[in-house]
Amino acid sequence: MQFELTKDFLDILNFAVEENNEAKVLELIDGLQPADIAEIIDEQSLEEAIAFYQFFSQEQAADILIELDEDSRERILNSLSSEEIAKQFIDNMDSDDAADVLAELTDEKKNEVISHLEDFEQASDIVDLLSYEEDTAGGLMAKELFKVDINWDIKTCINELRKQSQDIEQVYTVYVVDDKNILQGIVSLKRLLLTPDNKKIKDIYKDNIISVKVDVKDEEVGNIMDKYDLVVVPVVDEIGRLLGRITIDDVVEVIKEEAEKDYQMASGISENVESSDSIWLLTRARIPWLFIGLFGGIISARVIGNYESVLGIHPEMAFFIPLIAAMAGNVGVQSSAIVVQGLANNSLGMDGVLGRLFKELMVALLNGVILSSLIFGYNFLFSDNMSLSLTVSISLLSVIVFAGLFGTVIPLALNKYKIDPALATGPFITTTNDIFGLFLYFTIGHLMYT
Amino acid sequence: MQFELTKDFLDILNFAVEENNEAKVLELIDGLQPADIAEIIDEQSLEEAIAFYQFFSQEQAADILIELDEDSRERILNSLSSEEIAKQFIDNMDSDDAADVLAELTDEKKNEVISHLEDFEQASDIVDLLSYEEDTAGGLMAKELFKVDINWDIKTCINELRKQSQDIEQVYTVYVVDDKNILQGIVSLKRLLLTPDNKKIKDIYKDNIISVKVDVKDEEVGNIMDKYDLVVVPVVDEIGRLLGRITIDDVVEVIKEEAEKDYQMASGISENVESSDSIWLLTRARIPWLFIGLFGGIISARVIGNYESVLGIHPEMAFFIPLIAAMAGNVGVQSSAIVVQGLANNSLGMDGVLGRLFKELMVALLNGVILSSLIFGYNFLFSDNMSLSLTVSISLLSVIVFAGLFGTVIPLALNKYKIDPALATGPFITTTNDIFGLFLYFTIGHLMYT
Repeated sequence: MQFELTKDFLDILNFAVEENNEAKVLELIDGLQPADIAEIIDEQSLEEAIAFYQFFSQEQAADILIELDEDSRERILNSLSSEEIAKQFIDNMDSDDAADVLAELTDEKKNEVISHLEDFEQASDIVDLLSYEEDTAGGLMAKELFKVDINWDIKTCINELRKQSQDIEQVYTVYVVDDKNILQGIVSLKRLLLTPDNKKIKDIYKDNIISVKVDVKDEEVGNIMDKYDLVVVPVVDEIGRLLGRITIDDVVEVIKEEAEKDYQMASGISENVESSDSIWLLTRARIPWLFIGLFGGIISARVIGNYESVLGIHPEMAFFIPLIAAMAGNVGVQSSAIVVQGLANNSLGMDGVLGRLFKELMVALLNGVILSSLIFGYNFLFSDNMSLSLTVSISLLSVIVFAGLFGTVIPLALNKYKIDPALATGPFITTTNDIFGLFLYFTIGHLMYT
Repeated sequence: MQFELTKDFLDILNFAVEENNEAKVLELIDGLQPADIAEIIDEQSLEEAIAFYQFFSQEQAADILIELDEDSRERILNSLSSEEIAKQFIDNMDSDDAADVLAELTDEKKNEVISHLEDFEQASDIVDLLSYEEDTAGGLMAKELFKVDINWDIKTCINELRKQSQDIEQVYTVYVVDDKNILQGIVSLKRLLLTPDNKKIKDIYKDNIISVKVDVKDEEVGNIMDKYDLVVVPVVDEIGRLLGRITIDDVVEVIKEEAEKDYQMASGISENVESSDSIWLLTRARIPWLFIGLFGGIISARVIGNYESVLGIHPEMAFFIPLIAAMAGNVGVQSSAIVVQGLANNSLGMDGVLGRLFKELMVALLNGVILSSLIFGYNFLFSDNMSLSLTVSISLLSVIVFAGLFGTVIPLALNKYKIDPALATGPFITTTNDIFGLFLYFTIGHLMYT
């Protein structure tokens, strides 16, 4: 049912495009959606893409452009004049998509394109939208919406909607405003359809609806739409005037990117990269975290270096270095991940910091006692070195407790100072816990052996 | 604008509920949405929750029930008889919500509740829905939808919608079917509203729409709705008959949980836990991965143990154990995370396995050469032990290349055999890479020193 792009398909298509074989091209793309076409174009060379684009109407071309990867879109737009961009693409787009595309252009080109737009209202909508920060409700919203006055009757309302509907493809909700454009509520199309003509909007509209302020962060919009199961949410200014609306398909991206960003941070990837990106981009996204690891490794080497004399007499101390370091890292990552997800989902509940630390202490003690006993049992069975056995078990317990508390407190602290708590997970916390864990291990070992 | 639950608010509310002070309770919850009320009830004791529930109409009560945490919902449902559950809750729910709630009950109670439902059609819808696996399109869909026959005219259509609309709260799309109930396309409410009465549906409907088969996995539904920016998608059976529809608010949860699950796996958490869960649950979710770490630590100890004699003479070999282990782990986690996300987002592109391995090799070599040179420089400046410096640098380069390739190949292999590739990230890959990295380090060190 879903389209799957293959190398063979692409070769056949490119050949048909090159031959300018319209029948064949149309047959190949029959039934494909704009998102599928975009997938194809993302894999084409610029020449192939431009030739392929000739087979689409302006409206289709605009729908496809929005679905392209940022890189492909940039390549294609750079090959066109400002006038072509305005007439072929922007004229056929909703205001939010148009603003997103224009925001990717240089300031100079952006202004040129806007000057070529024929519909004054659309141009002014786009200019309005471009003034909002990209990662706020204003940056996500579209200006196209149906709105009616609270004092109208149903008949006036339907006539007005007929007028408004020329510009608007999809109706989600009809917004109800007063004569100052202040949002009062919504009325569903279904309700309009089923109510007698002479009734008034104010008798059938639903008040007490959720809206978002225009300067709210996009993640917050995502949380609100997710929490209240909204498909579309109206956007208002400081005094409640209706400015636009956000549909959930634009927010799904935000919700997904947010979850993925946390995952990438935890995995030590500092930029939003995909496996299809270039070697250089992938290296650049990964090496900063490896520097942290390298630096941590050097510090660890210094910590252990302080105990060179102990190691010379008791080389068996070295055997359990990886165990201590690994457990410190794992426990820290676990506890920080739980806090980071709790912060992201607003699900930390009402416990204070102390309550949460107490809980983490209990979890860490429980895990620590179980694991330390196991390793003590192992060492007791397979070695006769009681000092080493005790050192490993006591250190492991201490390290697990420390790493758990540290992993809990750091993301909470970062969050308090408005720094992304996801920074704390992954390599940073692993490295710190490694170093401290080894310090503990050798300190305890030193005490045990002397 | 958004409700934020505080301890104070909860105390005041609980007091008013206990006093049965209706005016005060209604004042406190004025303007709150069902999801907000659910947040309050999640924090109440069972007695408080049951007393609080008395203040809501049956319809409100049903809306709130769906928004509760699974635990709170279970507690409340267990305190009610099957008849109460049927009359107070299920009767007022959409079929998909009703089926979700019933699926959480025991088989016996579930059947009792169904036997108490008064609306036969609703009961049969629910029984149908309960027959689908929870994690498929069938498990996500609702049966309530507007559908019209392709041969009707607009007037018949509007009359029919008036009839159907008594059961259906929200209209997203009107589906067009033929006389065998096979899905043909959609027609928007807006279109219906704006077309003259005597036109036929077949003249205005939109064909070539995206639908999903009933047995498609929920993640796949999420991917499709995300890719094609759909707010609602119809569900069909093997021969294309229309069975139901899925709205995006139900899928956002799936998309989010999927992204979070990968993150949790990478962080070494094996069950879907939140920081507000019990100490026991949190321990149980975390300890399996720590067992892997412990086991890996023991193997590492054995690997190093083989080189005890080398260590006795050259204790400085121990200094760089944490560095080698940490880098092996970090690189492995990075490369597996990139593959796992690529698989989840269908964004791996068209490179084959070999192409991807070659790219990873290049990235790893680039990272490896930079980092090995740095550590060589460090050792050259701060120590005069050339054997050690060479050992560390050569091992580091080899370990980075190995860990990168291993981290790429394992998730691809798991995916090929239909095992969740996210299993490969986190502790499993870190531990394996640790062990192999140390083995390499000591083998190279042994060669260097002899």
